[in-house]
Amino acid sequence: MLELTFNQPLGGNTMPRFGGPATMMRLPSQDTASGLDACFVGIPIDIGASNRPGTRFGPRQIRAESAMIRPYNMATRAAPFDKLQVADVGDIPINTYNLEASLEIITNAYIDILAHDCIPLTLGGDHTLTLPVLRAMARKHGPVALIHVDAHSDTNEHMFGEKIAHGTPFRRAFEDGLLQNDKVFQIGLRGTGYSPDDFDWGRSKGWTVMQAEECWGKSMSPVMDDIRRRIGDHPVYLSFDIDSLDPAFAPGTGTVEIGGLTIWQAMEIIRGTRGLNLVGGDLVEVSPQYDPSGNTALIAANLLFEMLCALPGV
Amino acid sequence: MLELTFNQPLGGNTMPRFGGPATMMRLPSQDTASGLDACFVGIPIDIGASNRPGTRFGPRQIRAESAMIRPYNMATRAAPFDKLQVADVGDIPINTYNLEASLEIITNAYIDILAHDCIPLTLGGDHTLTLPVLRAMARKHGPVALIHVDAHSDTNEHMFGEKIAHGTPFRRAFEDGLLQNDKVFQIGLRGTGYSPDDFDWGRSKGWTVMQAEECWGKSMSPVMDDIRRRIGDHPVYLSFDIDSLDPAFAPGTGTVEIGGLTIWQAMEIIRGTRGLNLVGGDLVEVSPQYDPSGNTALIAANLLFEMLCALPGV
Amino acid sequence: MLELTFNQPLGGNTMPRFGGPATMMRLPSQDTASGLDACFVGIPIDIGASNRPGTRFGPRQIRAESAMIRPYNMATRAAPFDKLQVADVGDIPINTYNLEASLEIITNAYIDILAHDCIPLTLGGDHTLTLPVLRAMARKHGPVALIHVDAHSDTNEHMFGEKIAHGTPFRRAFEDGLLQNDKVFQIGLRGTGYSPDDFDWGRSKGWTVMQAEECWGKSMSPVMDDIRRRIGDHPVYLSFDIDSLDPAFAPGTGTVEIGGLTIWQAMEIIRGTRGLNLVGGDLVEVSPQYDPSGNTALIAANLLFEMLCALPGV
Amino acid sequence: MLELTFNQPLGGNTMPRFGGPATMMRLPSQDTASGLDACFVGIPIDIGASNRPGTRFGPRQIRAESAMIRPYNMATRAAPFDKLQVADVGDIPINTYNLEASLEIITNAYIDILAHDCIPLTLGGDHTLTLPVLRAMARKHGPVALIHVDAHSDTNEHMFGEKIAHGTPFRRAFEDGLLQNDKVFQIGLRGTGYSPDDFDWGRSKGWTVMQAEECWGKSMSPVMDDIRRRIGDHPVYLSFDIDSLDPAFAPGTGTVEIGGLTIWQAMEIIRGTRGLNLVGGDLVEVSPQYDPSGNTALIAANLLFEMLCALPGV
Amino acid sequence: MLELTFNQPLGGNTMPRFGGPATMMRLPSQDTASGLDACFVGIPIDIGASNRPGTRFGPRQIRAESAMIRPYNMATRAAPFDKLQVADVGDIPINTYNLEASLEIITNAYIDILAHDCIPLTLGGDHTLTLPVLRAMARKHGPVALIHVDAHSDTNEHMFGEKIAHGTPFRRAFEDGLLQNDKVFQIGLRGTGYSPDDFDWGRSKGWTVMQAEECWGKSMSPVMDDIRRRIGDHPVYLSFDIDSLDPAFAPGTGTVEIGGLTIWQAMEIIRGTRGLNLVGGDLVEVSPQYDPSGNTALIAANLLFEMLCALPGV
Amino acid sequence: MLELTFNQPLGGNTMPRFGGPATMMRLPSQDTASGLDACFVGIPIDIGASNRPGTRFGPRQIRAESAMIRPYNMATRAAPFDKLQVADVGDIPINTYNLEASLEIITNAYIDILAHDCIPLTLGGDHTLTLPVLRAMARKHGPVALIHVDAHSDTNEHMFGEKIAHGTPFRRAFEDGLLQNDKVFQIGLRGTGYSPDDFDWGRSKGWTVMQAEECWGKSMSPVMDDIRRRIGDHPVYLSFDIDSLDPAFAPGTGTVEIGGLTIWQAMEIIRGTRGLNLVGGDLVEVSPQYDPSGNTALIAANLLFEMLCALPGV
Repeated sequence: MLELTFNQPLGGNTMPRFGGPATMMRLPSQDTASGLDACFVGIPIDIGASNRPGTRFGPRQIRAESAMIRPYNMATRAAPFDKLQVADVGDIPINTYNLEASLEIITNAYIDILAHDCIPLTLGGDHTLTLPVLRAMARKHGPVALIHVDAHSDTNEHMFGEKIAHGTPFRRAFEDGLLQNDKVFQIGLRGTGYSPDDFDWGRSKGWTVMQAEECWGKSMSPVMDDIRRRIGDHPVYLSFDIDSLDPAFAPGTGTVEIGGLTIWQAMEIIRGTRGLNLVGGDLVEVSPQYDPSGNTALIAANLLFEMLCALPGV
Repeated sequence: MLELTFNQPLGGNTMPRFGGPATMMRLPSQDTASGLDACFVGIPIDIGASNRPGTRFGPRQIRAESAMIRPYNMATRAAPFDKLQVADVGDIPINTYNLEASLEIITNAYIDILAHDCIPLTLGGDHTLTLPVLRAMARKHGPVALIHVDAHSDTNEHMFGEKIAHGTPFRRAFEDGLLQNDKVFQIGLRGTGYSPDDFDWGRSKGWTVMQAEECWGKSMSPVMDDIRRRIGDHPVYLSFDIDSLDPAFAPGTGTVEIGGLTIWQAMEIIRGTRGLNLVGGDLVEVSPQYDPSGNTALIAANLLFEMLCALPGV
Repeated sequence: MLELTFNQPLGGNTMPRFGGPATMMRLPSQDTASGLDACFVGIPIDIGASNRPGTRFGPRQIRAESAMIRPYNMATRAAPFDKLQVADVGDIPINTYNLEASLEIITNAYIDILAHDCIPLTLGGDHTLTLPVLRAMARKHGPVALIHVDAHSDTNEHMFGEKIAHGTPFRRAFEDGLLQNDKVFQIGLRGTGYSPDDFDWGRSKGWTVMQAEECWGKSMSPVMDDIRRRIGDHPVYLSFDIDSLDPAFAPGTGTVEIGGLTIWQAMEIIRGTRGLNLVGGDLVEVSPQYDPSGNTALIAANLLFEMLCALPGV
Repeated sequence: MLELTFNQPLGGNTMPRFGGPATMMRLPSQDTASGLDACFVGIPIDIGASNRPGTRFGPRQIRAESAMIRPYNMATRAAPFDKLQVADVGDIPINTYNLEASLEIITNAYIDILAHDCIPLTLGGDHTLTLPVLRAMARKHGPVALIHVDAHSDTNEHMFGEKIAHGTPFRRAFEDGLLQNDKVFQIGLRGTGYSPDDFDWGRSKGWTVMQAEECWGKSMSPVMDDIRRRIGDHPVYLSFDIDSLDPAFAPGTGTVEIGGLTIWQAMEIIRGTRGLNLVGGDLVEVSPQYDPSGNTALIAANLLFEMLCALPGV
Repeated sequence: MLELTFNQPLGGNTMPRFGGPATMMRLPSQDTASGLDACFVGIPIDIGASNRPGTRFGPRQIRAESAMIRPYNMATRAAPFDKLQVADVGDIPINTYNLEASLEIITNAYIDILAHDCIPLTLGGDHTLTLPVLRAMARKHGPVALIHVDAHSDTNEHMFGEKIAHGTPFRRAFEDGLLQNDKVFQIGLRGTGYSPDDFDWGRSKGWTVMQAEECWGKSMSPVMDDIRRRIGDHPVYLSFDIDSLDPAFAPGTGTVEIGGLTIWQAMEIIRGTRGLNLVGGDLVEVSPQYDPSGNTALIAANLLFEMLCALPGV
Repeated sequence: MLELTFNQPLGGNTMPRFGGPATMMRLPSQDTASGLDACFVGIPIDIGASNRPGTRFGPRQIRAESAMIRPYNMATRAAPFDKLQVADVGDIPINTYNLEASLEIITNAYIDILAHDCIPLTLGGDHTLTLPVLRAMARKHGPVALIHVDAHSDTNEHMFGEKIAHGTPFRRAFEDGLLQNDKVFQIGLRGTGYSPDDFDWGRSKGWTVMQAEECWGKSMSPVMDDIRRRIGDHPVYLSFDIDSLDPAFAPGTGTVEIGGLTIWQAMEIIRGTRGLNLVGGDLVEVSPQYDPSGNTALIAANLLFEMLCALPGV
């Protein structure tokens, strides 16, 4: 009966799924990460976006669609709420008129979450947010390993002359020394670029880059076996951009590239992180206004639950 | 400084309007009505609906769109949060497979709210819900006066042979003796019917019925002056069906009738209840899936705020 | 009990409104107009449209949304199904690749309907269809009076060099001698034109043209009183283009002009035809794909019902 | 020329596909199953749904989108209308305010259909409807074999305390002895659950449960070979929940689970039932309001046609 | 024949309205304002927005919907292209990651346009853009008169601590001395505020503030007569926020307030500026993703055309 | 530095992707093909469509969504703008009321483009347009090889009695002798037909027909190897109907068939044409109103870019 001391998602037999609090999975909310093993946290930001906006509403819609998720994972039989204390700690109050100021707000907020030894799973928000999160991560854990699933490398030198934007976080993270470069994996990259060797920048730093075409028609499980082996027990951060998926699966995002990953591959990737020393994760770039059915947010909610199921201790 | 002891909506300079808790107006939430002067409460029900469904998601979307409402009413200069303790008490857990059972759940929940001397403002949900609410009202206040704004009279004897449905609540309320019949006002009725004298049933009981055509092109303020005079200080309940509005204003609802009220008339009606002894109110029949812009829910949220501004003591 | 011999719409207590046959008002269907006093007939055409297409799906969606209409008009207390034998005679099989051929198909179909002394109420379809309908009308009745409610005069000499298109039917009707020119009324015209005197063409032929600006803020009832007086008992055809309405009311159409009529004015116009010798009517230019809520088609269905209520004998 | 005596779908060269009667495949309609080998029948119900509603409009939209289907199957070269007399027998008039009453209405309607030795193919509607259909099936055929394609096992003991809901039909069917338990196949199950062994309940009864993960990346044809071998010539019912498909393929449904079947697998499954003694089938849980393109209903219409092509005698 | 030397919109008889260049009204485009009397110019910005984003796509969609506008105004018989040389000068390349930098880019671009004695009509973009435009205006014309039509006063001291955002431009304009304070008119203000006297700030500076409630049910023509009299021949700037309109008319915007102006009032206001010395105008806050029919952008395009028709010299 | 003399797409660091000219890839536009190696050209036609309309808006939306494409292909490292002079030559002004006349207009326009030795890549538009394009092609090149990717064979004898429609172009092309019949490849055909051997017509002429079922679960690269071998250096035209893709990938089209190609297969097909003597290509049947996210047009834009990358000389 020990597990009854942990927070549980509000069940559908207690409150219909279309009612109840609009927290992630209808979990209890609290203002800080105190006492938590893991938390869901929203960063409602889109001012780093280069094309379609709207990820500022990502956290709200991901939470809304998460209402249907039940506590047990039927494929892996993971039972995260039997093992971890989890809550929704709400949103980071970013400054929507000032991108630089927002980064500082985010970093400080994550320093605070990490001070409670709580693993944050972030509901984005545009990909700019991963930079301040990684800054907090590195401050606690030193340079981290990185599994970065995305259509884009996000390693531009600048965008429109600016250092900070949703196409630059991993270049900045490299420059800031936040990453363990031999344990950085970029999966799903594709599309068009400003030069034919855009994706080679990371390779030149020691990163492993697996373009989408290399994934077509394959199971990602063997890939993840290899990644787990190469990361070992190093602290690792998982950054999952929903646009890594082909738009057939996830239409509701802002910088769409055709020929992407399948949802089955996405699930294999996240399930394949089980056993790693995950210290945090994010699911970014959900833009609800491009998703009339709500299903992109629903995918995001489920992938965040899959991340929770893969955490150490579950 | 006294008013600082009252709950305040979370402001846009503290948390961007697209973030923060998805409660009504981003007010604090609490589980009971204890200590409150007024509360917002959701009833996520649509199983009483005869045509398009979806009002089960009404409370969730009304709350989402309410995030933009600031604390002061610029037209009436009302300052409800300076005078009243208000919170969001969440949703009533209706039984979505059993309409009769749901009515009992609702009545009991409102008996509990009213036991705290708290005025409930309800986020619907289909119009069936007004019957159990009125049952609780009458138990506390005796038969109440009623201002019922709607495209339909909702006084059918039955629907598909059933006594309980969203087209019957006011007939049942009459039969149960819940209404002060000389102080019942139905405004906005129109459309087509099963017999040419459907709207005369209420008239035969002493109710005042003002069909939509009588409202076309007119201000409702003089009408409300008259209604206030006739109700005096009798306890009065306000039931506002969003389909009273013409669908140009409120497309997101289930049983649409053309030729309805304008939003300006709706605001005049609710503002015109100021000075009455309002003991409760509801805003029903918002069906988000028929409202891609979200604006029907946004109207509903604002009209609920207008109800709050009209409460005694504001 | 005589009226029980007439067709009745399928009622909501017999079949839920979201089920049952997708005929107009869920009336019985038949292949010809034999034995009918009035009929609903669809013309699924949009190849005469100059801008947004989609009116080919107008009849289907108007029928779908008509399922909610009950048999009695609560404002006028008209009871059309007590007095007239009405059915849905289905769609005219137009040739969607050939506009000229389609016109001939339509004219022949209406000659057949009129041969049964049945009044056709047409579900459009783009406005091109009114020309072949008027050809059949004139063949039976001689030149007819016309009440034409529209944002556009539809009296272009040609469009892209073509004589037949949805912007030319009334010029062709004039040339063919189908109209009683001193009894032609165009209401609601507005917007932009190819020359500042586009709307004066009709005036030069003796037609009465009432631009939208002349209607703003006014009741149309006195206007209709005057029109009835001027038409007397001459056979009159009513052609109602849904784009006469301001797009706030009827977004789902193809050539939108701002500053249009209100729904209340539209209802006053159609109700104001009661007492005239109506020999036919149409409701054209509903384009469902620009109408996510379905409400433009719902308006169209209701306005067609209002036409039915205004027919002689009701 | 014998086959000319059978009903044929209305062809696109006779009536454009956007016109004509809104019956399934624009087939003739009739009120009973008399004289038919197979029929399409709609059950417009959604009051058994636990999350998003809207399947009450499933039959109407499936019929609308079926207008494009031509009479021959180009892959299998099946010619159902050369061999079977098929019609659309309309919708079952369910009681939308009373789930229990609706079940009885459905069972009785199917008893009547089966009395004519007609194979019903059902347009749903939420999955609750399969229970009353199976009750009629078992009454005629005894316990039937079952191929159940779904994201969910639908074997809950209860939902919100109720025995009847769209998550319980197959548990009730088991309890009622309607199933041949060694010939029950559940395919596509996945997602989250109330306990990690939810899907084992059916296994404990002798059912074969194939979770979605077992299907990923595989052809379903060998699976169907095995199923056919194990069912032999026992009467078999096919219940196909559209949410078995991944939401990339079928967004328009109410309880979405990620990582589902592909459309190619779905077609392999249904084509793989050819040769079995199919006594009925259903396609459930299409919710049009979550499907702006209409393509989920279009898939459903095509899968129902594929079922027709797989019937004995085609 | 003199007017043939002026640019003309591409006509519908030369190129179908759904084809051709996606410039404003399908006018010729040029890179600078050289040789122009008036120009259309886009500012694709939304990073000053506090709630829903998306106005970055406003210019693109306004241009797309403008394709239907013909060259003559049928109500006023204005013929702008007979009298003025007009072109589309494209978009200002704002820095989407840096609001302050964007303001400088905009001011410089408008200084350049004004250097050609060309009147700019701006396609927004969020309302922040009016500040840098006014800075350029004042540099050329000195403090200008202002007609500001909006739901909001946009005179906040700051938003989230920032001086520059879409809720502050007119306070900053006042501080910068850009306005002739006795000739500033704010029309349409309404909704909720941070204090009951928010709208009095402008009044305290000598501005005339007409709240929406003062406009309800009235023609704006007499109001405009008075405004014209009070402004005389002083240079005047017209800033029109689409959210001044009630959302029934213009759903596609980001900070929606109920109870707004009608489209007829909006047209009366803009037509009522004819005779003034208009030196520029903008139409801001069109957010296409909240406008599935495209009609909000279509209104915006038409109102910009009405502005053109009201310019001196037409 | 030679390649700097070629036109370049406007970059995202010069103008935000949501601004700038709405040409294909924001390339320069010009009125003729003079001086170009390749051009993008729009044909905004949908009057050949048999079911859902709307492809008239295909070119406009494909251009809008193309704004995000950068100049280099990250998978193939192709750099088309380093090697070819490319521009957008705008739209062909079809006669939207007359299909036959439109064909002549198109043929003449392509004769003119080909006279400049420019390879046209066409943004459709419904598939009827390929016939007049092929007529121009054959006039220059003689009978061409054809790679035709589609759900339909488009070889009907007639549609509704007409020779010209979007279901007949390849039968007409055969009859006109425009095709090299031993080098004609149809890929992706599926669905339902008017007779079980509809797809055998092409086979009987020597064409190679690969039905969708033959493609399921396979890479198309070996197929393309074979096709390249069989075509050799014969001039070849590529006609790509977006409905060849399964609707999960490309919902926004008019005659949807389930069970189609994947986006990965589509990319393999187009990339597999590299090395052929491509003399032109088209991407047809994008219907934006069935594609609320815009992603079908975005796919089309990218596939057209892939065609450009496959042209000789890149």
